[in-house]
Amino acid sequence: METIDIRNLLEDGRKEELREGLNKMVLTDIIELLQELPEDDNARVFDLLELPLALKAFKLLEPSVQKELLWSMRNDKAAQLLNELPADDRTAFFEELPSTVVKELLKLLTNEERTITLSLLGYPEHSVGRLMNPDYLAVKKEWTVKQVLDYVRENGHDSETVNVIYIIDESGKLIDDIRIREVLFVSPDKSMTEIMDNRFLALSVNDDEETAIGAFRNNNRFALPVIDDGGILIGIVTIDDVLRLAEDEDTEDIQKIGGVEALEEPYMTVPFFKLMQKRAGWLTVLFMGEMLTASAMGYFEDEISRAVVLALFIPLIISSGGNSGSQASTLIIRALALGEVTLSDWWHIMRREILSGLFLGSILGLIGFIRVATWTLFTDLYGPHWMLVAFTVAFSLVGVVLWGTLSGSMLPLLLKRAGTDPAVSSAPFVATLVDVTGLVIYFSIAIMLLRGTLL
Amino acid sequence: METIDIRNLLEDGRKEELREGLNKMVLTDIIELLQELPEDDNARVFDLLELPLALKAFKLLEPSVQKELLWSMRNDKAAQLLNELPADDRTAFFEELPSTVVKELLKLLTNEERTITLSLLGYPEHSVGRLMNPDYLAVKKEWTVKQVLDYVRENGHDSETVNVIYIIDESGKLIDDIRIREVLFVSPDKSMTEIMDNRFLALSVNDDEETAIGAFRNNNRFALPVIDDGGILIGIVTIDDVLRLAEDEDTEDIQKIGGVEALEEPYMTVPFFKLMQKRAGWLTVLFMGEMLTASAMGYFEDEISRAVVLALFIPLIISSGGNSGSQASTLIIRALALGEVTLSDWWHIMRREILSGLFLGSILGLIGFIRVATWTLFTDLYGPHWMLVAFTVAFSLVGVVLWGTLSGSMLPLLLKRAGTDPAVSSAPFVATLVDVTGLVIYFSIAIMLLRGTLL
Repeated sequence: METIDIRNLLEDGRKEELREGLNKMVLTDIIELLQELPEDDNARVFDLLELPLALKAFKLLEPSVQKELLWSMRNDKAAQLLNELPADDRTAFFEELPSTVVKELLKLLTNEERTITLSLLGYPEHSVGRLMNPDYLAVKKEWTVKQVLDYVRENGHDSETVNVIYIIDESGKLIDDIRIREVLFVSPDKSMTEIMDNRFLALSVNDDEETAIGAFRNNNRFALPVIDDGGILIGIVTIDDVLRLAEDEDTEDIQKIGGVEALEEPYMTVPFFKLMQKRAGWLTVLFMGEMLTASAMGYFEDEISRAVVLALFIPLIISSGGNSGSQASTLIIRALALGEVTLSDWWHIMRREILSGLFLGSILGLIGFIRVATWTLFTDLYGPHWMLVAFTVAFSLVGVVLWGTLSGSMLPLLLKRAGTDPAVSSAPFVATLVDVTGLVIYFSIAIMLLRGTLL
Repeated sequence: METIDIRNLLEDGRKEELREGLNKMVLTDIIELLQELPEDDNARVFDLLELPLALKAFKLLEPSVQKELLWSMRNDKAAQLLNELPADDRTAFFEELPSTVVKELLKLLTNEERTITLSLLGYPEHSVGRLMNPDYLAVKKEWTVKQVLDYVRENGHDSETVNVIYIIDESGKLIDDIRIREVLFVSPDKSMTEIMDNRFLALSVNDDEETAIGAFRNNNRFALPVIDDGGILIGIVTIDDVLRLAEDEDTEDIQKIGGVEALEEPYMTVPFFKLMQKRAGWLTVLFMGEMLTASAMGYFEDEISRAVVLALFIPLIISSGGNSGSQASTLIIRALALGEVTLSDWWHIMRREILSGLFLGSILGLIGFIRVATWTLFTDLYGPHWMLVAFTVAFSLVGVVLWGTLSGSMLPLLLKRAGTDPAVSSAPFVATLVDVTGLVIYFSIAIMLLRGTLL
């Protein structure tokens, strides 16, 4: 059924047809519909969904829409929904709410679900503990395939996934993970010990999210078990949560690299003043930093008034430093995020970037020299000492690009070392840093080369 | 077994102990070992791995290491490895190789596997066709649960996943997808028709990768079926490939935003001159563009020599335009990549960004005004007409930030409209564009306000 038909049925108030149509739609369309309909209408639509479908849809909605729906629901329906929601999705939802609201909502949960939620919320933010789901299937190693399949049939309904089955010992310690396919492929009377390989990979409950993302990236798994310090199996993390998380982290990184605080909400729905808050802060900080250029230039005012020609190349030179710095910092930020480089590689990176800076600076310096020389053929803008001007520009470009490359590559490492997010060393931030020092480099070289002629 | 022990055993040539130790290691450690060992040693280690483990490891290695290993293998072993590799991973590997090498390697495949590979390679690059795997489980709707489970037991070994089972009609048309859990939860004599819901979501073989990523992001699935134009089921795509792909795309976007061509290799392993090639190109283009600033400034040389004070604020003003432009373009590039905005939202975005530009520009303009006014209290750097200078700076900031925000936000949309990757409108690119126009805005306002006094 088309979204447009649904809207018509909604308008005409044809509830039964609406219910029938809705429950035949695919999930994506339902979600799109719920996010687009006005507040009251989406509550009416949501109310008509069968519980399993409502649950699936609710999990995938934007937090703002989730809140809307929950507020407009009767308490008993809200309770039912929250209790049926997988524990990790519920935790994710609660994290978006103010703690006073969470306290109210916790009352709607059954004792059992409340205990689970509270324990998940007890782990530090951005830890694997918050991400995990306590609903998994664990069996003993003596069990036969038939016993395991019977167990799955009876107990699998609450499990987040039946794709992997975990084998634990008497104390609850994880000793192996077995994919359901291994179980399905052998005859029913075999025991688990016969298909075990005693090789498993697990996340620790205190690992951070990035470790989890890395583990999934490098291991082609759909789910990973989570153990505590004693090796006891306490939950699982599934790849669908990780895909979403990896994307959120990338969005944050990208926004920081562009010089915006992480928005945390889609561009189209974030309120205007929140958007301004996220942008004005950084922009003001950068502006304050850039004001140092006016001070630096004030210091060289005398030189500029004597050789106005120097002023002409200021934007060209400082922007080249900024651009090469942005390049270097972006490369290192991403390599750090993917785990391709670590802090201990700093010396290797530094050598590489010094070479890069010299190489790239020489290219730009050469082009700059040619530019000044060529223009001189057609105009006398650069005066009789054009050759000295050309050398000043060329050497400054080498110096500024080298400096930009070096500071752009080292800054993310320093920030990481200081325990801050390296992505803060955004392109605009590095550019600002390099602008100020670039001016000093440029005018110092000019004073050295032009003393006695232009200066 | 620790990596260090492995290295010792390798050195001592204790092959049997090595074999035993290796086959007990977890996959991540094996992969790390293979990527770090020198070329000959990693071939020796790889040779000792049991085939299933060797396959798993091979799939996850960097393409450069995959090549090394394959070259150093005997042909029969290489043939075995390539034939056993899942078709989608094999296609991904072949895509990294020059076509002459692919032709050689295709000879090592069995007829059946060669046909599959050639057909996958026949789909356009970056299409779902390349990403899919032809090994899935499809059953008829009349089958009972018992029949299905027997079928899985006999035929599941070659399947990429047994987590989802597809139901097709006589012509091979996809009519439903059923998670294995649904099958495991009901009694063995039920038929598929009883658990079908006739609701499924499928990718089209001609969809691009981004559509696939979006479908996984919005639907919490582990695998999605792929159908051709006639609705015939021809393959599946699994989430592990999509996680990797989403990450690669984000890396590309991030690098482009930072003003580098996509590296396509990890920072630490990309050869120096390839790294330079990826960086020098953009840097030179930006430099050429930025040379226009020297031309623009040459045009205003007269004004600068009469009022040197104007030169002092040039870096401050143009960088503010660049920074606000970077912010805006980064936000829009990411929102486009995530599908949060589409081209049809351009008018909405434009209105929003005009407001943003005015708001942010006013903040910076105000700070700029205060700065000039405050400095005047302590120095006479800005002369008797400091108030006019302050107004010039303030109005220019509003104009430049508005212009930066507007062009930064519209450029990604224009690029997308032109069929190019919006991420090309990187922070440095927008900054360069805005630098040149920013100078014109600044000097035009200066000429208007300062005529008769300073100019």
